[in-house]
Amino acid sequence: MLEKDCSDLFIQSYSFWDHLSDGEKRELCDNTVTTSYPKGTSIHSGDSDCVGLLLIKSGQLRTYLLSEDGRDVTLYRLFPGDVCILSASCVLESITFDVFVDAEEDTEVLLTNSAVFRRMTEDNIYMKCFGYQQATLRFSDVMWAMQQILFMSADRRLAIFLVDELSKSGSDELKLTHEQIARYMGTAREVVSRMLKYFSQEGIVEVSRGSLKILDRQKLRKLAQ
Amino acid sequence: MLEKDCSDLFIQSYSFWDHLSDGEKRELCDNTVTTSYPKGTSIHSGDSDCVGLLLIKSGQLRTYLLSEDGRDVTLYRLFPGDVCILSASCVLESITFDVFVDAEEDTEVLLTNSAVFRRMTEDNIYMKCFGYQQATLRFSDVMWAMQQILFMSADRRLAIFLVDELSKSGSDELKLTHEQIARYMGTAREVVSRMLKYFSQEGIVEVSRGSLKILDRQKLRKLAQ
Repeated sequence: MLEKDCSDLFIQSYSFWDHLSDGEKRELCDNTVTTSYPKGTSIHSGDSDCVGLLLIKSGQLRTYLLSEDGRDVTLYRLFPGDVCILSASCVLESITFDVFVDAEEDTEVLLTNSAVFRRMTEDNIYMKCFGYQQATLRFSDVMWAMQQILFMSADRRLAIFLVDELSKSGSDELKLTHEQIARYMGTAREVVSRMLKYFSQEGIVEVSRGSLKILDRQKLRKLAQ
Repeated sequence: MLEKDCSDLFIQSYSFWDHLSDGEKRELCDNTVTTSYPKGTSIHSGDSDCVGLLLIKSGQLRTYLLSEDGRDVTLYRLFPGDVCILSASCVLESITFDVFVDAEEDTEVLLTNSAVFRRMTEDNIYMKCFGYQQATLRFSDVMWAMQQILFMSADRRLAIFLVDELSKSGSDELKLTHEQIARYMGTAREVVSRMLKYFSQEGIVEVSRGSLKILDRQKLRKLAQ
């Protein structure tokens, strides 16, 4: 892409930018393209892909683990301004696990080719350090998710999830099936249905087919604390 | 500690050593001491500690998560030659979670003061990069543990755990209570007892008070695959 556009975008998000030579800046920009992923696209799946470093311009990505029998557990979500490093996991030798990354909404990214990113990190310690620092940030996200999944009671987890969704959607109406909620929370659909029945008896939500309406935000927030 | 001893030990494990100035090498050695932790010592607990960077000379450390109600889940173990970075988590700003680290055996380490380590990483990108790279290595360990805990059937997990313990102890007799095994596996004692009863009926183990004897290694290994 054009160096001017590239520079404007990278300078804000890539802390290594100031440590690149003019030649390196040009190389990075020459090997970066704007790419769009329609909602639902699989961007990275297990060990088969290494598409490259993504800087999110708009939309949302979801990173998750998948079991052999098809259960999935959300690890974290990425929003505009965030960097997706695990889609370039082949570049960093200390990353030895595989996750899946999907576009949860129509998403636009700046995509830097992973072979070029790899070669550049070999020569520039600041780029390499940036990669590992991004991985460590995601490590923190995953530890948070792990604590939620392992230790937190189902009602509190569901309340936190709904408060989160509310703040993202800006509406009281959430278009989510029990199946979807269960998938995002890494639990069984039955658990979600049981909890939603309880929430609805408490006057917190109104449940209808394929969607939820939040009736009492205050009560929900209290449960989430 | 003496620069000669320090250099011999660090040069093998700290990939940034060659990128330190003579002054930095001296500073690092001057602020590193040999420390012993008797078995059972709590080295790092939640957000209250930041003891420093540890290089393990002998023994074993265990890193785990702890729930409010006292359940714990093992994330990974560290052995001689490994580096414990989370005991210096305050140094790396991208680490925003808390874990616990205990000495599982009598353990001897080289301990580098965290304030000094922090100051040095600010001036030396290679040290900083090393810290984040170590954190990313542990991220891989945690993802492995998470997949075990979330997706794997209890019998397979127990078999893997016992195979692991066998290879560490070198004896067919494992001194472990059901409670301890449950703690290490992040599951309930009842689950472990039930599985061990099944293993014993299958002729794989012989269970006695406070210990286990492995009778059929081959069968155990097959279960673990």
